[in-house]
Amino acid sequence: MSTSVSPLAPKHYPAMPAIDGVRIATAEAGIKYKGRTDVLLFVFDRPAEVAGVFTRSKCPSAPVDFCRQNLVHGKARAVVVNSGNANAFTGKRGREATEKTAAAASAAVGCASNEVFLASTGVIGEPLDAGKFSHLLDGMARDAKADRWLEAAKAIMTTDTYPKVATETVLLAGVPVTINGIAKGAGMIAPDMATMLSFVVTDAPIAASVLQALLDKAVGATFNSVTVDSDTSTSDTLMLFSTGTAATRGAPAIADVDDRRLDDFARALGRVLHSLALQVVRDGEGARKMIEVQVTGAATSVSAKRIALSIANSPLVKTAVAGEDANWGRVVMAVGKAGEPADRDLLSIWFGDIRVAHGGERDPAYSELDTSACMKNEDIAIRVDLGIGDGTATVWTCDLTKEYVAINGDYRS
Amino acid sequence: MSTSVSPLAPKHYPAMPAIDGVRIATAEAGIKYKGRTDVLLFVFDRPAEVAGVFTRSKCPSAPVDFCRQNLVHGKARAVVVNSGNANAFTGKRGREATEKTAAAASAAVGCASNEVFLASTGVIGEPLDAGKFSHLLDGMARDAKADRWLEAAKAIMTTDTYPKVATETVLLAGVPVTINGIAKGAGMIAPDMATMLSFVVTDAPIAASVLQALLDKAVGATFNSVTVDSDTSTSDTLMLFSTGTAATRGAPAIADVDDRRLDDFARALGRVLHSLALQVVRDGEGARKMIEVQVTGAATSVSAKRIALSIANSPLVKTAVAGEDANWGRVVMAVGKAGEPADRDLLSIWFGDIRVAHGGERDPAYSELDTSACMKNEDIAIRVDLGIGDGTATVWTCDLTKEYVAINGDYRS
Repeated sequence: MSTSVSPLAPKHYPAMPAIDGVRIATAEAGIKYKGRTDVLLFVFDRPAEVAGVFTRSKCPSAPVDFCRQNLVHGKARAVVVNSGNANAFTGKRGREATEKTAAAASAAVGCASNEVFLASTGVIGEPLDAGKFSHLLDGMARDAKADRWLEAAKAIMTTDTYPKVATETVLLAGVPVTINGIAKGAGMIAPDMATMLSFVVTDAPIAASVLQALLDKAVGATFNSVTVDSDTSTSDTLMLFSTGTAATRGAPAIADVDDRRLDDFARALGRVLHSLALQVVRDGEGARKMIEVQVTGAATSVSAKRIALSIANSPLVKTAVAGEDANWGRVVMAVGKAGEPADRDLLSIWFGDIRVAHGGERDPAYSELDTSACMKNEDIAIRVDLGIGDGTATVWTCDLTKEYVAINGDYRS
Repeated sequence: MSTSVSPLAPKHYPAMPAIDGVRIATAEAGIKYKGRTDVLLFVFDRPAEVAGVFTRSKCPSAPVDFCRQNLVHGKARAVVVNSGNANAFTGKRGREATEKTAAAASAAVGCASNEVFLASTGVIGEPLDAGKFSHLLDGMARDAKADRWLEAAKAIMTTDTYPKVATETVLLAGVPVTINGIAKGAGMIAPDMATMLSFVVTDAPIAASVLQALLDKAVGATFNSVTVDSDTSTSDTLMLFSTGTAATRGAPAIADVDDRRLDDFARALGRVLHSLALQVVRDGEGARKMIEVQVTGAATSVSAKRIALSIANSPLVKTAVAGEDANWGRVVMAVGKAGEPADRDLLSIWFGDIRVAHGGERDPAYSELDTSACMKNEDIAIRVDLGIGDGTATVWTCDLTKEYVAINGDYRS
């Protein structure tokens, strides 16, 4: 595991305001790690509205199966997250572990088992012993406090080198409402030690179906636009909860996704998810540089995103950035291999503000010196214009360094 | 560039027999490299039948465009290959370079320009100065000899650490015919310094249309089943030529792909391509281990191949093998992310002969010690049985090491 904090870590953390109706507790259960917290409990004192999106993996973890099942009820009273073990590919014993954890949580909080949501992150294939932490939930539920967001983010870390939090406060029909989020993830999405998990809570009184629609829309340009290594976890989980407590301060109940009073809220939710997603990329395993890949002029936006991800997932593009090499030939390669409409002779490529290729060949004004200087930056912007349509997309990734190989090749042996 | 030969290199090279009707010359043109050959000329003294398959990239190199155009004529008199510059993304100047080279070759050999085939490999985006080698072709055509196959393979190397050759001799209706092949490639398919090129010549009198059908069929289980880094070159080229000279020894002319007399030849062609493709993988940039990924029990063979490639292209699987870690959790992840039909509870996974996972969880007989011992081998076999159908596929890749990052992150800077 990493011992030093990513050079791309945030320089400071926002103050995370308390949100009425949700309390937080963390504990050291020693599931795998020693000397740090590894269990997180969210308690909603009254049933919260809930929405979620999960991994598209055909081999999802037991907690993902469990959450999907409970999500149809649309109400949450408790969330239990453990780090150190993903409870994935654990078969019948995995299901038993989720049931045992949910039973303990429902007893601790005083709710139905289908109002409990679970997530686990850590090693795959090792049976998860829920007995290591289920007995702690009772005390945690009693001691949970509203102002523990940073502690919450710390308890769910695996190979992360820093906790990830974000917050926004906006007006909903003139009433301030807050959105707090936490996330973990360092290999996007490494299955063993770096599953992506994120939990977001608001006090805005918004119905579950509307939360789900907002989340489905917001995830495309945020968590679904970041990649560290193209590997998709068995456990990816993003959940959004509403305590609705801003209603006591006059916020209106929103039950229609087309309600225009939601516009500012939706944008703020987008900013929270965007911040968390970029924090995940900036903590990418071994990352030394963040890369923004912007594709414009594609046939469609779907096509633009496929091309952007082809560039962002290319080992050769990522190693070139690691080597501070403005190797736009590899960008051409990645455009070409995406299989999307593209015409070599209409392609333009920029590194930062410098156009390096244009009209099917190297830009006549290309300067190796200027471009090399640009590649020394911590944040690298690659832009490709295809010149054939209006489709655009932006995705984010990080460079591929020897440390990535070391982290993923050495840690278990 | 690499200075030491891959530990996975062949321990010896086959003797490459001469093939009547084709002569070979190589030369030092100093296109980029110093003190080594970098131009290859094949001369067919009578028009050879020709077939080819090329990169699927939407941004192909100028020589690929040129070859596709000439292939419709189905006859070859000369092939010119240069290393050091890929003549890709070079626009109008790239087309001019192919025309200049083809004109020089047709003058040297005494043939039409549409009987010339070209390939270039090396850096992308730099204009190729055909003048550096076009004046050499005349002398090369005069001096070309039949017994220079290994020299041919050496002249087209870029980041390759060893030349790649293969040969088979089989009976065609009782008459011995020979198939000789050469290949280059080290990052499959790295666009800058390791484009995959392969040229195969036989004396069997087989019509171009039949050669094309044989090649289309054979490429699926050979060159299209290997991957080093999932990156597809702008320049991938595989060509098959027939001099037809075995006819003088009584071999029958074959004009029908369903002619059963072709069966042994088709199998031998498959072995040549398989050998060359595996030599490319074994020279994968930074490779220390070769990985064979076999998928059985998939819904269909197309599905099996997608799953096999998902495993073979996963940076997390490849780094685990580099670290000699039997991390089957990452194999589960790669199966899950392929998006193909899969049922966690029916999945079985083997490393070598050791079944590590079965029925949705770790194999009860799993031994970390035995499995770790198996991971110390140079050749690693990963097998996944999905338990839902009859689809099978096998693909080959190599591990992902810090040297891969060094080769691709450091070489241009």
